[in-house]
Amino acid sequence: MAKDFVVGIDIGGQSTKLGVVDARGEVLAQSVIKANPSDDAKVIIDELAAGVKSLITSAGKEDQIRGIGVGAPNGNYYTGSIAFAPNLPWAANGEVPFAKMLSESCGGIPVALTNDANAAAVGEMTYGVAKGMKHFIMITLGTGVGSGIVIDGKVLYGSDGFAGELGHTAAVRHNGRACNCGKSGCLEAYCSAIGVARTAREWLEASDEPSQLRLLDNITSKDVYEAAKEGDALAKRVFEFTGRLLGESLADFVAFSAPEAIVLFGGLARAKEFLYEPTLKAMNDNVLPLWKNKVRILFSQLKESDAAILGASALAWEL
Amino acid sequence: MAKDFVVGIDIGGQSTKLGVVDARGEVLAQSVIKANPSDDAKVIIDELAAGVKSLITSAGKEDQIRGIGVGAPNGNYYTGSIAFAPNLPWAANGEVPFAKMLSESCGGIPVALTNDANAAAVGEMTYGVAKGMKHFIMITLGTGVGSGIVIDGKVLYGSDGFAGELGHTAAVRHNGRACNCGKSGCLEAYCSAIGVARTAREWLEASDEPSQLRLLDNITSKDVYEAAKEGDALAKRVFEFTGRLLGESLADFVAFSAPEAIVLFGGLARAKEFLYEPTLKAMNDNVLPLWKNKVRILFSQLKESDAAILGASALAWEL
Repeated sequence: MAKDFVVGIDIGGQSTKLGVVDARGEVLAQSVIKANPSDDAKVIIDELAAGVKSLITSAGKEDQIRGIGVGAPNGNYYTGSIAFAPNLPWAANGEVPFAKMLSESCGGIPVALTNDANAAAVGEMTYGVAKGMKHFIMITLGTGVGSGIVIDGKVLYGSDGFAGELGHTAAVRHNGRACNCGKSGCLEAYCSAIGVARTAREWLEASDEPSQLRLLDNITSKDVYEAAKEGDALAKRVFEFTGRLLGESLADFVAFSAPEAIVLFGGLARAKEFLYEPTLKAMNDNVLPLWKNKVRILFSQLKESDAAILGASALAWEL
Repeated sequence: MAKDFVVGIDIGGQSTKLGVVDARGEVLAQSVIKANPSDDAKVIIDELAAGVKSLITSAGKEDQIRGIGVGAPNGNYYTGSIAFAPNLPWAANGEVPFAKMLSESCGGIPVALTNDANAAAVGEMTYGVAKGMKHFIMITLGTGVGSGIVIDGKVLYGSDGFAGELGHTAAVRHNGRACNCGKSGCLEAYCSAIGVARTAREWLEASDEPSQLRLLDNITSKDVYEAAKEGDALAKRVFEFTGRLLGESLADFVAFSAPEAIVLFGGLARAKEFLYEPTLKAMNDNVLPLWKNKVRILFSQLKESDAAILGASALAWEL
């Protein structure tokens, strides 16, 4: 029977999403598995394989699956392993040969693995705003900041499979904020959802400026966004600051790979109305004259849940 | 007759070097043309073509030249043009279709053009310390700072042919030194020969610390190097500072493309004894744990004059 379908899997700290996808990028069936607290990779992978099999059955596509593509934190395309992923208890303290184990549990269907930001880049290139582009950089602005770099139509993996960790380049070179990675001043410490909330909290502490955010106990980036929409001046400045730091970093990324566009994706990218202009301005203020007003900043238009599945699934076509 | 030889040309602000090269990277004959102050591109290119023809004749390789490879400031691989190159009066104020014009003046021999740092990277990959590497970054530390980025064994040109301008990424994000490019805080403003001399001059002005450099009128990077070799404490600290800034930037480049190695080249790289340790330390202090002590910093071992010709010539084999 022709194998005209693939499975896309997006593994996150909270849940794992899976879908059966056809060649046009239609998600025919999808399901969600809530994160299992077990730290036993075998348990997790067997549970996932059961979910995959049942989804394939419910879509009526037994024996028609060409491959399984998986996006996961710290997923390595070259080795097929997930290693030292702090948000996955079963892969937090060592290296799990994930692709091999899942393929075995799924009766030998081939499995390709990459990290979540690379999967998002593939999804955007195959089905989204980067369709037809040969050179672009995907920046995922979520709890953290990830990136997927596309060069000549292919994801950049580098010598070891870990290329594209732009969230951990320096947004602030000295005396920057501590980052979860152990370094300080990283882009992720400022331009993630957590970074935005932290900027707001720091600024509220440092002044008496009135802000509706003062009424809240535990400020999140969503609170800052809501406040900005209601005209809160401090909240709006938090996004201006965030956009400025992001744009300054983007300018350096442009000097590296001369992309056609930067694609922003993830929860924080929903604050487009406040982020777009300061980000674009800071980028253009910091690139060489030859790139001024030439590189576009685009916001992903794929549904976030679909995008992750689609990106991972696109990987499976190459198997 | 078999076309088993190529010509490599390195165009600089002071002079142009050319050589006839065989497949093993032997420079069979070479010559130098001093920079002509004319701002007429036709004059310059006809003069160069005459030099090429006479060199081919003196090497006895008429009708055996497969192609001509050229490295030049702001040379664009895709378009074959040199545009807005501040140090070349004949290409400073517009775009010169260099490859086409030179090919016509040389009786139709095909010409490939790239910028000087990319040519150096190709030379290093073909004949130097990067032989066999698929992923590395070449940093040229000369009057300015250039870069050539190799991904999967190919020079990265990006969407427009201008990728790899790492000399103009931010070494200092705010209130940095003015750079020749019009921006401020660029790596080139600190880690070039000019930057080293400037650091020394600034530090001498800012303190009364004794230093043999105080005896000099117009300090150059070579003076700082000589002083450091003689044990001058201030001069040695200038290199430590330069190495630290360079290493911090290299850490961010590693996060982008995960190279096997960084190759340093150019006049300033001769100060290896003072630059290597602070650069390596700063790089390792600023990369994610997964790259700590994994990425090598290498110094080019090609003779500088040969390297430029060899790099440019290597480009011609692909014609």
